[in-house]
Amino acid sequence: MNSGVQAFQQVLSKIKDRMKDIRYKVAVISGKGGVGKSFIAVSLALALASQRRSVGLLDADIHGPSISWLLKVKEPPSAISKDLIKPAIGPLGIKVLSAQFLLPKSEMPIVWRGPLKTRLILEFLANVEWGRLDYLIVDLPPGTGDEALTIAQFLKGTNGAIVVTTPSDLAGFVVKKAIMFCKEVGFPVLGIVENMSEFICPNCGAKYTIFGKGSGRRIAEEMQVRYLGSIPLDPRINECNDKGEPFILKFPESEAARKIYSIAEKIIQILESQYKRE
Amino acid sequence: MNSGVQAFQQVLSKIKDRMKDIRYKVAVISGKGGVGKSFIAVSLALALASQRRSVGLLDADIHGPSISWLLKVKEPPSAISKDLIKPAIGPLGIKVLSAQFLLPKSEMPIVWRGPLKTRLILEFLANVEWGRLDYLIVDLPPGTGDEALTIAQFLKGTNGAIVVTTPSDLAGFVVKKAIMFCKEVGFPVLGIVENMSEFICPNCGAKYTIFGKGSGRRIAEEMQVRYLGSIPLDPRINECNDKGEPFILKFPESEAARKIYSIAEKIIQILESQYKRE
Repeated sequence: MNSGVQAFQQVLSKIKDRMKDIRYKVAVISGKGGVGKSFIAVSLALALASQRRSVGLLDADIHGPSISWLLKVKEPPSAISKDLIKPAIGPLGIKVLSAQFLLPKSEMPIVWRGPLKTRLILEFLANVEWGRLDYLIVDLPPGTGDEALTIAQFLKGTNGAIVVTTPSDLAGFVVKKAIMFCKEVGFPVLGIVENMSEFICPNCGAKYTIFGKGSGRRIAEEMQVRYLGSIPLDPRINECNDKGEPFILKFPESEAARKIYSIAEKIIQILESQYKRE
Repeated sequence: MNSGVQAFQQVLSKIKDRMKDIRYKVAVISGKGGVGKSFIAVSLALALASQRRSVGLLDADIHGPSISWLLKVKEPPSAISKDLIKPAIGPLGIKVLSAQFLLPKSEMPIVWRGPLKTRLILEFLANVEWGRLDYLIVDLPPGTGDEALTIAQFLKGTNGAIVVTTPSDLAGFVVKKAIMFCKEVGFPVLGIVENMSEFICPNCGAKYTIFGKGSGRRIAEEMQVRYLGSIPLDPRINECNDKGEPFILKFPESEAARKIYSIAEKIIQILESQYKRE
């Protein structure tokens, strides 16, 4: 038991050490799954990189390893030694690490118990050599369960959480819980992003709120957190996602991409001006 | 430790006892969150009830307590004694029980550790008096994590899992894992339901595959499981969900509702003919 505690302390201090060259750590979270959290995480990482920031992207959502899919980063990270993992390099030079890479076979389900998952996540954080980064974006598992809790504990000093939701009242209801979770674990909330906001028929221009209307802004007001913006539904997003082509690089002029670039600029403004004031 | 094992055995035998008057237990699962799993679970429960089957609905997805939201079942279950919980009664007389009812405050996040969640789920199963049921529909947490694993262990004898996905390749990739999970824990897969299949512009009739095309059928063929059908996107589904009005009862003539009724009929055919043959 004592050696277990010792090993744990070692992992903790290693994590602290690895993280010291990272200026801003941003967690992307959601209450519900399927709101496009990973798409937002990838897109924001790329949008920040396009503003000449050095960016790392950690896929800590081990049940839905979407990041490597969205970026078609098929190469495993290089393990320089047992204790040193180098992230893969994605578009615009962003450094990417996903639990996906640690699975023996891509279709193998992760039927793992809590402690095992916790260990995996900790080892990840302790052994990855990110190097100097302006931003580390962490794609957290949805909800407020074990994994989110574990990672939250070890990402102490995270500069903020971006909370992703959809416009439906149900998603809003669940996202309120996620915001309370942030407060509970001491994550400052950078703001809310509403994804899948409305669908504009490319044929006739009619607008549809397939998943409801405006709950992101309502929740932001109610919970007194920043509203960062809304991303419309665009069929090309799913097409790009399925092909592993970054949507915001392929269609930078689309309304969805413009919204994402503008959210990334807001994040830069918020964090980098805060930093200067300190 | 011994008394812990004893208590565990007691819970197990109680669960077995409570379940003995339920003819068919059907789990609704998904690989990814946000594919509409709870909507499908509620709708199938109602569609089965409309075929004069007695139906129970267990919301075992404790992170996204959607069932009570979708049915606006606001009344807590009646606790006749400490060890006996009576489910609430929903539309068409279905018996509904959700983890939501056990939370002290609806916005409180469930930041609970694995063992605590496991205990909650087990106590649920052990103490609920379902009475005689033709069908118990269990809305499982998404993915193949702790909770899904726990419940799977204690729902041994489940007649089948309905796997919900969306048409995107990414969702399909993740759902393959869920199907492997079913095989691993010994759940027969009843079949795949593809939700959010296509969007037909109500104004001009143009069809859009906002979330991709046909991965449900492809996965079914690849994994050699039944394809139960696809449910189109319909803005009225979200409207009904947000109001807590059951969509299939309000718009029974819509294509989405007709598809759901037809899937319920398939489930009846599959399970009740199998039963007769035995």
